[in-house]
Amino acid sequence: MPAYNLLLDFHVPPTILETSENGKVTSNQEMHNVVRSLGLQGPTSAVTFQDGGTLAVFHNEDGSHATLRVYPQGLVTLDLQQWVEEGGEPKITGEVLSDVEQKFKRVLSSKKSKRLPFIKRGLRLDPYITTTSEHIVEYDFDRVVYEENSPYQNIKILHSPQYGNLLLLDDDQNLAESDVAYTYAMTGNGREDFTNKDVLILGGGDGGILYHLLQQNPKFVTMLEISFYNMYQMVIDAATKYLRGICHDCFDSLSGDNYLVRVEDCVPVLEQYARDGKTFDYVINDLTDIPIAQEPTEDECDLPDKILDLSLKVLKNKGKYWTHGANTNNVPQKFEEHLKNLLQPVDFLKEVIAIPSYHELYPFYVDEGAFLWALCCESRDPQDTAVSSSYK
Amino acid sequence: MPAYNLLLDFHVPPTILETSENGKVTSNQEMHNVVRSLGLQGPTSAVTFQDGGTLAVFHNEDGSHATLRVYPQGLVTLDLQQWVEEGGEPKITGEVLSDVEQKFKRVLSSKKSKRLPFIKRGLRLDPYITTTSEHIVEYDFDRVVYEENSPYQNIKILHSPQYGNLLLLDDDQNLAESDVAYTYAMTGNGREDFTNKDVLILGGGDGGILYHLLQQNPKFVTMLEISFYNMYQMVIDAATKYLRGICHDCFDSLSGDNYLVRVEDCVPVLEQYARDGKTFDYVINDLTDIPIAQEPTEDECDLPDKILDLSLKVLKNKGKYWTHGANTNNVPQKFEEHLKNLLQPVDFLKEVIAIPSYHELYPFYVDEGAFLWALCCESRDPQDTAVSSSYK
Repeated sequence: MPAYNLLLDFHVPPTILETSENGKVTSNQEMHNVVRSLGLQGPTSAVTFQDGGTLAVFHNEDGSHATLRVYPQGLVTLDLQQWVEEGGEPKITGEVLSDVEQKFKRVLSSKKSKRLPFIKRGLRLDPYITTTSEHIVEYDFDRVVYEENSPYQNIKILHSPQYGNLLLLDDDQNLAESDVAYTYAMTGNGREDFTNKDVLILGGGDGGILYHLLQQNPKFVTMLEISFYNMYQMVIDAATKYLRGICHDCFDSLSGDNYLVRVEDCVPVLEQYARDGKTFDYVINDLTDIPIAQEPTEDECDLPDKILDLSLKVLKNKGKYWTHGANTNNVPQKFEEHLKNLLQPVDFLKEVIAIPSYHELYPFYVDEGAFLWALCCESRDPQDTAVSSSYK
Repeated sequence: MPAYNLLLDFHVPPTILETSENGKVTSNQEMHNVVRSLGLQGPTSAVTFQDGGTLAVFHNEDGSHATLRVYPQGLVTLDLQQWVEEGGEPKITGEVLSDVEQKFKRVLSSKKSKRLPFIKRGLRLDPYITTTSEHIVEYDFDRVVYEENSPYQNIKILHSPQYGNLLLLDDDQNLAESDVAYTYAMTGNGREDFTNKDVLILGGGDGGILYHLLQQNPKFVTMLEISFYNMYQMVIDAATKYLRGICHDCFDSLSGDNYLVRVEDCVPVLEQYARDGKTFDYVINDLTDIPIAQEPTEDECDLPDKILDLSLKVLKNKGKYWTHGANTNNVPQKFEEHLKNLLQPVDFLKEVIAIPSYHELYPFYVDEGAFLWALCCESRDPQDTAVSSSYK
C-alpha cells in the first residue's frame, strides 16, 4: 500500500516572485494552472507568510494532493503525493511530471530545476537505506527472504537482483552476497599466507571470513560470535540457509578438524585466553560498529577499547589484527589518533575499499591497530625500536 | 538556499483509523497535538476524502509547513518542510523528529515507521543523482570544481571527499577519480598483454583507458573522441586539469611516439579505416550509452549497431572488443540476444563489476561482442567452427 511522492524544485530569479502586477500574482496564477492541469483542484488552502512567501494546497477527490511553496529568496517547491496500489504504476506518471516541470520552468523563467525519482512510501518492501553518513540510498529489493525479530533487534535478509541476498540488522546494511571484497579486505587482500596459522575471528556471523580462511589451510580458526539474547545464533542460522553466497557450507557444522564456532560473549573468552597465555597469528575483529556483549551500560563506549586491548594481548608477536568501520564523522581520524596513543606501539595501514552493496567507501587498516571501521594492524616486536605509524 | 524536507511514514492497523468515538477522531486529535508540538499551528486546512482518508495542513509564520495524510488502508504520512540557511542546520532537528516519530507510533499503535534522512532541496550543490535504474543516490559533494555549458550539454566536475573529483554530463554520473575499477574492467581486468599491440579507443574522454594502456608498452593507441559541438574537446580540457587522478598526464599532449588523440566523429573515421583495411588488436568502446556523432536523427537507434558493426570490421582476427552499459531494464539480456544474432559469430564474456562511485553494478563483457553497458568480446577466426556463446 504505497504512496508515491514527487518532489520538484525550481531555482527562480527572485524578481519573478516579487509582488507586482506582472510579478507574483501572475506567476502564482500560472503556476496554479499548471498544478490544476494534473487533475487537482484548488488551491483549497493558501497562506502568505510574513516574508512574502506563499503556500498553496491542492487536492483531488481520488486522494492525491499537492503543496506548492514559494520562497521569495528564489526557490519554488512542488510536492505531489498520490496513492498507488502495491505493484501498480502511478496514475500521474513520470512523463506527465516531466511535462509539468517544463511548463513550470517556462512560467518561472527558471533555468535550473530538479526532479527526484518518486519516493515510494509504505511499500511492503522498503527500498531505502540510510548510510552511516546519513545519506539516502535506494535499493532494488524484490523480495523478503527472511525476517525474524529477536528480543534485541530485527534480522532481515532481502533479495536484490544486483547484490543477491543482503543482511540487514535493524534496517542497517550488513553484507550482501556480492560483497566478497569485504571479506578479502578483512583478510589482507590476498597478501597473507594463512597456511598453518592460528586465527581468531570476533563476530563474523555472516560466515564470509570463516569460509574464506578455511580454503587456505589454516592450523585452526576460532570464531567467537556474540551470544547476546540468542541474536547472533539467529543470524548464523539465517546465514546458513540464505547467505550461502557468503558463508557457503562453513556453517553446516559449527566445528571441524581445524575450526570451531563459539557463540559466546567475546570479552570473557578473550580475558580467559589472555590469562591462559593463548595467542593467535591473526585476530580479525568483524563485530558490528559498537560491539554488544552485554546490556548497554555507562561504560559501553569503552567496550571497543577493551576489545582492542584484549585483542592485542592475545596477538602473537608480529601478529596481525584487522578491523573495519565507517568512513564518516571523523571516525577514521579519531581512530588513528587512538592508535598513535596506544601504550603498546603498533604499525598500521589503512586501505579504503568499495564494497559493492554499501554505497560508501570503507577504510580498512593493516599493520597493528584497532577497530570501528576497518583496520589491519601488525603487533610490533617489543624488542624493535619504536617507529612512528605509517600510512600507505 | 535550501529547504529541508522530512518524510515520515507509519504503517498503522486500519482499525485505529476508523471513524468511531475511540477511533479516528481521537487519533487525529492526538496526531495534531504531536504536530503542534513542533511549533506549527493548525490544522489550517483539513480535508476528508470520499474513502475516509484525511489531509491536514499546518504551518508556522517562520515559514515551515507540514502535511499530515491519513490513508484508511493503513498508512499515515507526515511531511515537514523547513527553510535552512545555506550551510546551516535545520531548526527542527533529526533528534526532535526522532522524538516525534516515537510519539506518533504510540498514538497510532504503529509497530513500523520509516524516517528518511532530510531531503535537501535548492542546495547550491545538489547531492542527488538518479541512477540508470531510476533510483535515488545521495552523494557527499562538497564543491564545484568546474562547470561549463557546451551548446549541447552541461559539463560538471564535482568534488566528493569519498570519490574524489567526479565528472557529470547533464547531471549523469560519468566517472570519478576513485573508479580505476572501471578502467581495469574495460581493458580486461589485467588478463591482457598490450605489449606491441594496436589499440583503438572510441570515446574515453576522461583519459583513464588511454593512461592505463600507455603504461603497458602498446605499439600504438588511437583514441577517437567525438567532436560533436566541441563538447568532448571541453571534456578533455576539463579532465586534463581536474581529473588527473584518472587521466594523469596523458592529455598534457594529445599525441606522442605511440599514441594519438583525434577529436573527430568516429563513424566516418571507422568507415575510412574499414575501407583502408586498417585493423586493431583491441577496440575499446567507451562511448556514452547512446553514442552521439551527429544531430539526433530517426536512425539514431541504429547508431550503436553501426558502431559495433564497424568496430568488428576493423578488429583483427582474434582481436578483442570491450564495451559497457547499464545493468537495468533488460539491457544486458537484449544485448546478449543481439550478439547471438550477429552474422559474424562472436564469443563473449560478461563480468559484473562494482565501480565505487556508481552505486550500481555494471556488467562488462569479454570475448567478442558489442556495447551499451560493458562488454569485451573476441572476434572469432572465421575458420573456426561455430561455438555457442558462453558466459562466465
